[in-house]
Amino acid sequence: MKALEEKILNEGTVLPGNILKVGSFLNHQIDVDFIMEMGVEIARLFKNDGVNKILTIETSGIPIAVAAAAAMHVPMVFAKKNRTGNISGDTYKTVVHSYTHGVDYNVVVAKEYLSRDDRVLIIDDFLANGKAIFGLIDIVTQAGAEVVGACAAIEKGFQHGGDSLRADGVRVESLAIIDSMEDGQIVFRR
Amino acid sequence: MKALEEKILNEGTVLPGNILKVGSFLNHQIDVDFIMEMGVEIARLFKNDGVNKILTIETSGIPIAVAAAAAMHVPMVFAKKNRTGNISGDTYKTVVHSYTHGVDYNVVVAKEYLSRDDRVLIIDDFLANGKAIFGLIDIVTQAGAEVVGACAAIEKGFQHGGDSLRADGVRVESLAIIDSMEDGQIVFRR
Repeated sequence: MKALEEKILNEGTVLPGNILKVGSFLNHQIDVDFIMEMGVEIARLFKNDGVNKILTIETSGIPIAVAAAAAMHVPMVFAKKNRTGNISGDTYKTVVHSYTHGVDYNVVVAKEYLSRDDRVLIIDDFLANGKAIFGLIDIVTQAGAEVVGACAAIEKGFQHGGDSLRADGVRVESLAIIDSMEDGQIVFRR
Repeated sequence: MKALEEKILNEGTVLPGNILKVGSFLNHQIDVDFIMEMGVEIARLFKNDGVNKILTIETSGIPIAVAAAAAMHVPMVFAKKNRTGNISGDTYKTVVHSYTHGVDYNVVVAKEYLSRDDRVLIIDDFLANGKAIFGLIDIVTQAGAEVVGACAAIEKGFQHGGDSLRADGVRVESLAIIDSMEDGQIVFRR
């Protein structure tokens, strides 16, 4: 998505440790008019796939998931993270390792909000090593539902989570794919 | 908002401890078409107030804040919670006590996303004792910005946070106000 690439170049900052800071529009301050356009683009990409539910993971996947769900007129579910192990109620559960924070999270979705009739599009703001999306796929699979695909706003191609997902047969659409950020220079995949 | 009251009656469940479960449409699964309507209603309520930024707090305030921001065509900022005390960068910061979880959270917003030119509408899914909204008001005040008002999807009137805010001169608009939930019977304020 050309407009997103331009926005990343104009507003993004590359920080040490391969961190791309996009807090001005994507994950702290949200340029809502812009993410609604991203939602329309996601709806276009998956318009023939019978998606009837969108799944994301708290926190920063939520705005873009809302935008896509608004454009597709389907409900959205966000998986909840907790570190405590104390989870009440009847849930699907998986464990995701956060590379950024160096901890394992329990990730849960209440069973009542995912069923075998669901055709699920998984959405997140970033796709890096893919651990979060693999965890969400595990949850969808536990529910007997179908993963239609996964869509990230920004894929860090050099961290290879997208490659692993595609190698597993998952349809992955990322609105922008960054192949390298060496020396602060952002190079997009063509 | 009549449609919200009906939705609460149809889909909400009262659990022990004055908990209203609305996970089917507001804070776990999100009925996005419905929250977009709520956003339009919030935009109507504050249409003459020159709002140029919406502020909420992670996590469950985010969807309704996105919906309102989409209807008002303004950016949204979500304050971040953490329990660690390790906060990097230049931030406005306050402490909010969570009654539900029995812990104090640091709540932070990067200084670059709030300024003295901002006219801020604070949004959250629930307003109960008001601690979260008072915390966000503290952050807006630190930035030298103006609090135009606060809007919750559901106010638990019997927990009196809304009363305290109004007594402090804050304009509070809640889309539904519950005056009591005794014996599982939901009574709305007229």
